[in-house]
Amino acid sequence: MKSMKTLQKEIKLVEKMIKKDVAIETTIKNLYDHIFKSNGKKIRARLNLISSSLNRNKNKNFRIKLAAIIELLHTATLVHDDVVDDSSIRRGKKSVNNIWSNAHGVLIGDYIYSKAFIYMVDIGNQQILQELSNATNDISQGELIQLDAINNNEITLNKLKKISYFKTGRLFEASAKTGALLAGANRKCIENISKCAKNIGILFQIKDDLLDYSSNSKTGKPLFQDLKEGKITYPFFYAYKNANNKEKKTLIDSLGNKKVSTFKILKLIARLDGINKAKKLAKQFHKNAIIFANEIDNIEVQREMIELTNTALYREK
Amino acid sequence: MKSMKTLQKEIKLVEKMIKKDVAIETTIKNLYDHIFKSNGKKIRARLNLISSSLNRNKNKNFRIKLAAIIELLHTATLVHDDVVDDSSIRRGKKSVNNIWSNAHGVLIGDYIYSKAFIYMVDIGNQQILQELSNATNDISQGELIQLDAINNNEITLNKLKKISYFKTGRLFEASAKTGALLAGANRKCIENISKCAKNIGILFQIKDDLLDYSSNSKTGKPLFQDLKEGKITYPFFYAYKNANNKEKKTLIDSLGNKKVSTFKILKLIARLDGINKAKKLAKQFHKNAIIFANEIDNIEVQREMIELTNTALYREK
Repeated sequence: MKSMKTLQKEIKLVEKMIKKDVAIETTIKNLYDHIFKSNGKKIRARLNLISSSLNRNKNKNFRIKLAAIIELLHTATLVHDDVVDDSSIRRGKKSVNNIWSNAHGVLIGDYIYSKAFIYMVDIGNQQILQELSNATNDISQGELIQLDAINNNEITLNKLKKISYFKTGRLFEASAKTGALLAGANRKCIENISKCAKNIGILFQIKDDLLDYSSNSKTGKPLFQDLKEGKITYPFFYAYKNANNKEKKTLIDSLGNKKVSTFKILKLIARLDGINKAKKLAKQFHKNAIIFANEIDNIEVQREMIELTNTALYREK
Repeated sequence: MKSMKTLQKEIKLVEKMIKKDVAIETTIKNLYDHIFKSNGKKIRARLNLISSSLNRNKNKNFRIKLAAIIELLHTATLVHDDVVDDSSIRRGKKSVNNIWSNAHGVLIGDYIYSKAFIYMVDIGNQQILQELSNATNDISQGELIQLDAINNNEITLNKLKKISYFKTGRLFEASAKTGALLAGANRKCIENISKCAKNIGILFQIKDDLLDYSSNSKTGKPLFQDLKEGKITYPFFYAYKNANNKEKKTLIDSLGNKKVSTFKILKLIARLDGINKAKKLAKQFHKNAIIFANEIDNIEVQREMIELTNTALYREK
């Protein structure tokens, strides 16, 4: 329990560091403040702090900064995503592109990205820079592949998994890896915590897909948003595979349809076993993550990684 | 003349390095190829190569890579700019957002940005990383300030200059500075070539503003694009200052007006001395650039910087 409190304190320091931005121009300040006013879950920053706590005494001063970098990178992708998806709500608040414009979303996203790189350079660790620049590139690839897959009901499970890895798992993996690198962990430990995190990330994405169909969702984003944007989620994918021709047509018609009868589609996807199969897949990734967590040779960190894995599976937001 | 040929060869190597992208996904490959099919002027990459030729033998292998990074960063900003400005033409060809979509423009821009950072990390020079991450952040600030100034006929000359510096001059400056850093030049020389480049950059932007009103323009972008987008350019700024109330109204009405009578506005802006005054300002920055160029203690580099300064002033595209 003591370590939970420490983590909470550290997250507060991360928030403080992010909010301490020096932009003089009013518009930049307003945009930046709006974006960081609503505090997200910061699961990636937490993951990074847990990982860098493998050795709290090494590069102590940079632990908070590295977690802030992870959060900045993640936020930059969210801001750009909202432009890409034309989303009006983010974390329960109006998105930048909704209040200002797409142009503002693009540019403040670039601002936040480059701010993250400035911080990275401050830390000055070549391996960390390498991992994070590669991860950023992979994330943009994941988003592009996903964009290409919109309304593509013929998508394969492998492609869906690749999207989940690049788009979501990759930053989880990089959060854990860079934390462990900062802590100066040994090669084996870096590998275990990175693989554990990668699996948590993909699990996190599958759960995200499931929450799109969940009426209990407290995500702060509207229900059926993915479906209405034409995104093939795991529940949809599995249901489609089990559907007869008439059901396939109903499913295809619902994709990207803003006026879809959500109740009807939810019932259909559930009946075609889409929800259950997606839950099963989530459990597989949960299991994988736990296997790698159990290999981590620091008991405290191991325990926290297992807790995080469970949170990813059982979360409702 | 010998050095001109060498530079031309090096530029070819830069193009080759950029085009050698490893994206497997078809859409990413198509987007990337489309963007780099049309070769721009590469003035920033040239500037960088000239600067790093201060010592051709130091970090030889990284000279081409650094120039490629500069070109990638510049291209990423162009791709995002086209989304921000909703432009349909770039370098005489259809823009990404025109052929594909805004979403593709945002994401492939991010892809190119992060690719530049991956290359930077390969070079692994802390000062170069610092300068380029700061420059990238400043460029996004410049774009945001400009966005905020759309249709603002009350803008000050200082603000206009700040936008020109952040948006354009800053990357020119960083191109020269990082080149000189790579060459291991002395402090004074780094300062002179950076300040020379900063002035060339601002001059380049003023000239860009003038080309928006020039019927001889071979820029590959439509005439009066800035005016139609509501951007206050230097010719407009000076003309507005000299205008009487009726003329002011005509000028204001033309701002951001896609159906503006360009011939009439061009005549008005010329009559109100907008063109001449902007040309005078360009000459001031040209003069400043030459002053710093003359301080560079490498005769070959000095000559090439002077030539580049002249090209920036007399260019027609």
